[in-house]
Amino acid sequence: MKLNIALLAGDGIGPEVIDQAVKVSDAIAQKFGHEITWKPALTGAAAIDAVGEPYPDATHEICKNADAVLFGAIGHPKYDNDPSAPVRPEQGLLKMRKALGLFANVRPTFTFPSLLDKSPLKRERIEGTDLVFLRELTGGIYFGEKGRRDGGETAFDNCVYTRHEVQRLAKKGFELAMTRSKRLCCVDKANVLETSRLWRETVQAMEKDYPEVTVSYEFVDAVAMRLVQWPNSYDVLITENLFGDILTDEASVISGSMGLMPSASMGAEVSLFEPIHGSYPQATGLNIANPMATVLSAAMMFESFGLMEEGSAMRDAVNKALEAGIVTEDLADGGKAYGTKEVGDWLAANI
Amino acid sequence: MKLNIALLAGDGIGPEVIDQAVKVSDAIAQKFGHEITWKPALTGAAAIDAVGEPYPDATHEICKNADAVLFGAIGHPKYDNDPSAPVRPEQGLLKMRKALGLFANVRPTFTFPSLLDKSPLKRERIEGTDLVFLRELTGGIYFGEKGRRDGGETAFDNCVYTRHEVQRLAKKGFELAMTRSKRLCCVDKANVLETSRLWRETVQAMEKDYPEVTVSYEFVDAVAMRLVQWPNSYDVLITENLFGDILTDEASVISGSMGLMPSASMGAEVSLFEPIHGSYPQATGLNIANPMATVLSAAMMFESFGLMEEGSAMRDAVNKALEAGIVTEDLADGGKAYGTKEVGDWLAANI
Ligand SMILES: CC(C)[C@H](C(=O)O)[C@@H](O)C(=O)O
Ligand SMILES: CC(C)[C@H](C(=O)O)[C@@H](O)C(=O)O
Repeated sequence: MKLNIALLAGDGIGPEVIDQAVKVSDAIAQKFGHEITWKPALTGAAAIDAVGEPYPDATHEICKNADAVLFGAIGHPKYDNDPSAPVRPEQGLLKMRKALGLFANVRPTFTFPSLLDKSPLKRERIEGTDLVFLRELTGGIYFGEKGRRDGGETAFDNCVYTRHEVQRLAKKGFELAMTRSKRLCCVDKANVLETSRLWRETVQAMEKDYPEVTVSYEFVDAVAMRLVQWPNSYDVLITENLFGDILTDEASVISGSMGLMPSASMGAEVSLFEPIHGSYPQATGLNIANPMATVLSAAMMFESFGLMEEGSAMRDAVNKALEAGIVTEDLADGGKAYGTKEVGDWLAANI
Repeated sequence: MKLNIALLAGDGIGPEVIDQAVKVSDAIAQKFGHEITWKPALTGAAAIDAVGEPYPDATHEICKNADAVLFGAIGHPKYDNDPSAPVRPEQGLLKMRKALGLFANVRPTFTFPSLLDKSPLKRERIEGTDLVFLRELTGGIYFGEKGRRDGGETAFDNCVYTRHEVQRLAKKGFELAMTRSKRLCCVDKANVLETSRLWRETVQAMEKDYPEVTVSYEFVDAVAMRLVQWPNSYDVLITENLFGDILTDEASVISGSMGLMPSASMGAEVSLFEPIHGSYPQATGLNIANPMATVLSAAMMFESFGLMEEGSAMRDAVNKALEAGIVTEDLADGGKAYGTKEVGDWLAANI
């Protein structure tokens, strides 16, 4: 297969972890006979510094015409304490999601047996956890009208959803559930919000098309609790943008393997793959960042092309590295810590 | 002191736990020479059944003219699976909050040494946790304009905040922080929402009035993570209505003592005190519900009148009962379980 991949390294440790994912992906391409053309493009604070905006048109052109986007991380402390700054890296992220139509953010939370003890939860609570959030990513309060009235004394944010937006996301949820344990949880706040009532009635109407899927409806506050109490009771969860932002981050820390969690943002035309961790500016250039989440994101990318064996080969390499203790300092637990680059080299060599 | 307390028992186990709190409060009144007049009133599903609405005018009259409201729990399964039912218990709750102006929901999360092992978190993560959320309760997306357009195909919910609403809540937060470790965390999503930017700039402007308080600003998704990772790193947190709904419930399960957590909802004129647990319809009438959270809510009520010794006496009784193993089955851990009423009797006798 000929693959044309937009490469958005971003800020902080982004470039370092992206380098490793490229290296491992190239090893996959070589082994399985694919040809990958990497198209680097600017994003985030790096793009603001270079051309004055976080998601430049040139970057959008590259992404739009690519088969997929591999993304590092964005965010820089110089933009952190001024949420009203005219240009911020996050704006680029939101613009990119909207412009590329990345409506479904796929966020798995699973455990690695060797890392269970890193979880803040007791072992018996976390063992066996294997859930996936599908977060709506291009609608809701993130993209509704917002502003000020009364000379700045009143602020407002509008949350809007159409039935079509809910259906599109829910369809992915039902389909994903069909490939797993066939349990789908719709997370909403239908006892208070009209948008949530639209979500719930839309999903309820779709149930008949997936008779094998057992659907439950839970309020967002109840899910925030149960995620801590019994994370392993969930399979696939679907939810709107803001609830998804909060709950996927909550879910990410329960596994103890946050540095290993990949994600995908799926659109109708192109999809984007990225680690869920941030840009960790403090670690920039120190060769200590864990590249595994980015490598696993690249695995999701291969799988999105139907290249399942390629994806498995990458996952296997990561599992082998974990077992062999070829890990960065976040996982070294007092043992030997390898550098970002060394872990990447090992993974590439073990494809 | 002569106290005139509205008594809203509500649904499910509400009446049973309220009975115990009344009994213990009466013991306090007798010991300290106060006179309490209890004014029972209908609310929740019980009120819908009796008079067709969940917060009847007659109940509002009683609450408005009381010195405080002691509340049990509301909610009944017959209303649970139909969020669009014309009359729901939750509507009564929201109407009551708005009508009584209960703008600040105070939700402490603390640990009891004897219950640490009930937490889903590892002991070293949870030990020493003692935080308080102040959740704004009468504004935001709960009370903004909501509805449908396009023949029902589009739904919207408007989130609105005024500077005054933020100041009023934040002032309580700063004041509370001054009585504790002087750390205040403002939880928002200022990188995305205009209402959050109003929150942040308003709190920032108030910092100079409380030079001793150290204020931090964190995004809601980051707080959802850190609450699981390091709950004991927080002191006082302030936040808007919906974020507060999600985060206070998340916080409530980390302690392992959810059945013991009280809360207060403060207004300008009158305040309301209630356990954070729900109405547990399955347990109704079985004499197994844990009354301690309601008793501790009554303790907060006494303290709100400046009756600190009275509040302490109630807390001490609860602590003693825990140590002596005079507990309901949720805390019995295979040992002897006492009934709701028996625990109430013991607490009253030990005032
Ligand atoms: C940076 C921010 C705008 C973004 C979001 O809220 O979507 C982030 O938290 C995420 O989840 O990707
Ligand atoms: C029942 C519901 C309307 C309510 C809320 O969302 O405020 C509840 O979850 C709470 O936190 O008191």
